Amino acid sequence: MTSQPIVSSSKIWCHDARGTAYSFEQFRDCISAFHGYPAPGLFIGAKMVDLALASLPSGCLFDAISETGNCLPDAIQLLTPCTVGNGWLKVFDLGRFAMALYDKHNGEGARVFLSPEKIALWAEIDSWFFKRKPKAEQDTRLLLEEIEQAGERILKMQKIRVCPEISDKISLGAKGLCPGCGESYPLKHGACCRACGGQSPYKVPACDEACGS
Amino acid sequence: MTSQPIVSSSKIWCHDARGTAYSFEQFRDCISAFHGYPAPGLFIGAKMVDLALASLPSGCLFDAISETGNCLPDAIQLLTPCTVGNGWLKVFDLGRFAMALYDKHNGEGARVFLSPEKIALWAEIDSWFFKRKPKAEQDTRLLLEEIEQAGERILKMQKIRVCPEISDKISLGAKGLCPGCGESYPLKHGACCRACGGQSPYKVPACDEACGS
Repeated sequence: MTSQPIVSSSKIWCHDARGTAYSFEQFRDCISAFHGYPAPGLFIGAKMVDLALASLPSGCLFDAISETGNCLPDAIQLLTPCTVGNGWLKVFDLGRFAMALYDKHNGEGARVFLSPEKIALWAEIDSWFFKRKPKAEQDTRLLLEEIEQAGERILKMQKIRVCPEISDKISLGAKGLCPGCGESYPLKHGACCRACGGQSPYKVPACDEACGS
Repeated sequence: MTSQPIVSSSKIWCHDARGTAYSFEQFRDCISAFHGYPAPGLFIGAKMVDLALASLPSGCLFDAISETGNCLPDAIQLLTPCTVGNGWLKVFDLGRFAMALYDKHNGEGARVFLSPEKIALWAEIDSWFFKRKPKAEQDTRLLLEEIEQAGERILKMQKIRVCPEISDKISLGAKGLCPGCGESYPLKHGACCRACGGQSPYKVPACDEACGS
């Protein structure tokens, strides 16, 4: 994020890791540019990141965890230096709408999560989050208004320590060529690459088409 | 990506899904802003995305696959509307430096991958990719020069069809409250959430600290 919008303090929705403040409306633009559409979960996610960032010691080098692949990873990627591709953000498919930021060196940090009992006080958020009515009947304008009004009051935070096997950087180790596809893969995966070992997401490719020369 | 840089056609390194062209230097700025540092794998990743994009039919609504969590997901997130958080990008831990873009509706698309035998013609790329020398001895300037010079000549492309179980949108289904942590989780995960079922990335949280009111 390189822009430096000016937001009156009463209107601040969230900050990024550099301290730049965004109003709800300004962050809507960030979401739309990156995520494609203003998903309600990303506004909540931004508030979660904002809380977690504020809880870290100044100058802390941190990594991130998202406990769901839905929406939250993008709030983290938009507001912090942690991305999926640089490995500072790890996404776990735990199905909980929760995220954590933690000190790279000692694993200590803060976890922020949605509180079901707090959500219950906000009819449209509760209905959206628990899918209590069909999407077509959802009042998105009202939902976003409630999210903005509720702010951090639907969230809880707890201190956590990340397990060393998660926080330690694990090398992929030596590479070799897979006897199946001929491509490079981490030898620690076994005698062939995982794709040739049955985990390929593709049906057998129809044909090869080299490009370049 | 909202900027519209002007790049002479001989200097174009890659395009994003909207057709905006980026030179090698311009894309270096995109990488640094999002990924934190100009990782060599991201320049190659951008060329891979560029090739895959060019192979799709005009107007095709597509999803993306990255076969590694290293670098490549960020090239896809920078150049296409597909992100981890919106679910249009799926990351598989297959350990292959390869990615695919495919039609959402029929699963047909293009997979682009690094060719080991083509890499062998480029000493610094080969040495970096196969970790043939310690990182401290790596000549990053020469490596990036070779990557720019090699362009798509280290890549191969093949047509693929993605398995329906990957390309079909799978609903998380009904949610309930976990009897362990009290948080919401997808009931199809079982009698308790996966974190309470032993997959938590945290040691037991030291204390709870509610925020908001």
